[in-house]
Amino acid sequence: MRDAPKDLYERVLKGDRRAAARLITMVENGDRDAREVLRMLHSRTGRAHIVGLTGSPGSGKSTLACRLAQGYRAAGKTVGVICVDPTSPFTGGALLGDRVRMQELAGDPEVFIRSMGSRGALGGLSVATNDVINILDAFGKDLVIVETVGAGQVEIEIVKYAHTCCVVTMPGAGDEIQAIKAGILEIGDVFVVNKADREGAQRTLADLEMMLETRPGGPGDWKPPVVATVALEGEGVDELERAIERHSAHLLESGMMAEKTEQRMKAELLGILDLMVSREAGRALEEGEGKELVRRMAERQIDPHSAAEEVVKYLLKRAGN
Amino acid sequence: MRDAPKDLYERVLKGDRRAAARLITMVENGDRDAREVLRMLHSRTGRAHIVGLTGSPGSGKSTLACRLAQGYRAAGKTVGVICVDPTSPFTGGALLGDRVRMQELAGDPEVFIRSMGSRGALGGLSVATNDVINILDAFGKDLVIVETVGAGQVEIEIVKYAHTCCVVTMPGAGDEIQAIKAGILEIGDVFVVNKADREGAQRTLADLEMMLETRPGGPGDWKPPVVATVALEGEGVDELERAIERHSAHLLESGMMAEKTEQRMKAELLGILDLMVSREAGRALEEGEGKELVRRMAERQIDPHSAAEEVVKYLLKRAGN
Repeated sequence: MRDAPKDLYERVLKGDRRAAARLITMVENGDRDAREVLRMLHSRTGRAHIVGLTGSPGSGKSTLACRLAQGYRAAGKTVGVICVDPTSPFTGGALLGDRVRMQELAGDPEVFIRSMGSRGALGGLSVATNDVINILDAFGKDLVIVETVGAGQVEIEIVKYAHTCCVVTMPGAGDEIQAIKAGILEIGDVFVVNKADREGAQRTLADLEMMLETRPGGPGDWKPPVVATVALEGEGVDELERAIERHSAHLLESGMMAEKTEQRMKAELLGILDLMVSREAGRALEEGEGKELVRRMAERQIDPHSAAEEVVKYLLKRAGN
Repeated sequence: MRDAPKDLYERVLKGDRRAAARLITMVENGDRDAREVLRMLHSRTGRAHIVGLTGSPGSGKSTLACRLAQGYRAAGKTVGVICVDPTSPFTGGALLGDRVRMQELAGDPEVFIRSMGSRGALGGLSVATNDVINILDAFGKDLVIVETVGAGQVEIEIVKYAHTCCVVTMPGAGDEIQAIKAGILEIGDVFVVNKADREGAQRTLADLEMMLETRPGGPGDWKPPVVATVALEGEGVDELERAIERHSAHLLESGMMAEKTEQRMKAELLGILDLMVSREAGRALEEGEGKELVRRMAERQIDPHSAAEEVVKYLLKRAGN
């Protein structure tokens, strides 16, 4: 049975969980009706604060996401949690293997949890994730926590959609610190050393603080705090909540929020655009001039970079008619 | 000091390792001259057989890639190895942490090894990887082995560039088998159960074979073999080599090679196109109508999907002038 877009839209706005879950599944399946509902919902978005949690597997992000959600609930806020694992083909309502802890939360009607893998959103996981953020925002969640695995491209893309990005590491993770240094030092608004009851925690905290000292002063002059947590015991989670809150307040006071929103919009727009063009171009290569171009490439008569320029010309010509 | 494209082109064709390494670094840095060299090299590609190795971390793909390379060398063939880790920001000549074993190989002048992380190829790791495949092909390598971590999107994209895709798993990896079932059963030409001296190997082999029974018959009716290996000891690697060789022969005899080549060309073309459009569109949003569109999105006057359509129109109009 199919739901009419208008009907689904109204049910999501009313806070109907099943309607929201249904809409998210439609997004993952690339359903055209879902896009129609998203169009309608867009004017109702922009209220939620979006928190990104990133860091390598094993750093305890899932548990941390869970504790954060519990903390926000205790403060009377409603929460959405999206667990994104681009290395997993699994998706949908089922929680991923090591996310059993999330089930503690799942009984609370004011918490909405969703796992997303790469399967249902081929070629567009970050676009699909952002669509789900928007759905949970329109659905009325005060906070949307997006937890992603690893520090690869997809994760960094997804972080662009967050207002506050928390980078999670743990003691003794030497390589991890190197990775942060090389790649994601710039994207963190708050840094977390989780499992801080382990040996070497002080050292890791000190290392991180030193690295942040040398980080070029970002816009609005925010100095990212480093927070120690033991998520399993719930320790330090309140401090992390306060750090996120301070960052949120800083965004508003410094006028940075407008810039952040603009960045989010650009990332969203470019993601959708990429998907559109890929689909269009993919179709173009199946017929006529496009097909001929692929044949010439295979026979080494034209190199791929020149061929790509030809496809652009061809698409333009076709669009012009 | 910069190298002239023509000079670099000639040195790569002559088998100058330093020139090849230099060109690869230029590719990773998005150097415009690199594209010029790639254009020139394109007519000299198409000779190498490209073998993809994919599977989760821990399945021993690195060791397997190393053993395969040693086997090919023993048979008098020249080999290129590309280690792609989209979750690592590291890149360049330095070998990744757990790839010390590769250093055994690195002394052989007929073996060319390169690690690629996400850092140098922002937004275009799969395009950069394919460029490196083409460089090693033109450089004269008989075989190019591309090893990728995990089963996410980037990995699946990179597999599209291979002639023979080997999916590596290990005994008792129940989740792993599930992942293969859900996502990458379709993309494997050869399946490998590595660490086959561990408990449960027979079970894993049997499970895989059963799953492959129910796989819809692919084009050209290739039945993917399942090979047991203990890469650390070099066991079963010769069998894997023969399986890859049989697949290669099958591609030629069945006429499937032409189709495979066409697929590779399409993937290459679409990858480059995506990058081109992203750059173009990114610039468009920084000025005039594009900038205005982002402002309207931020104020919720227009939804992102509609805005993306506007950008396409704008880009077309601008290109038409």
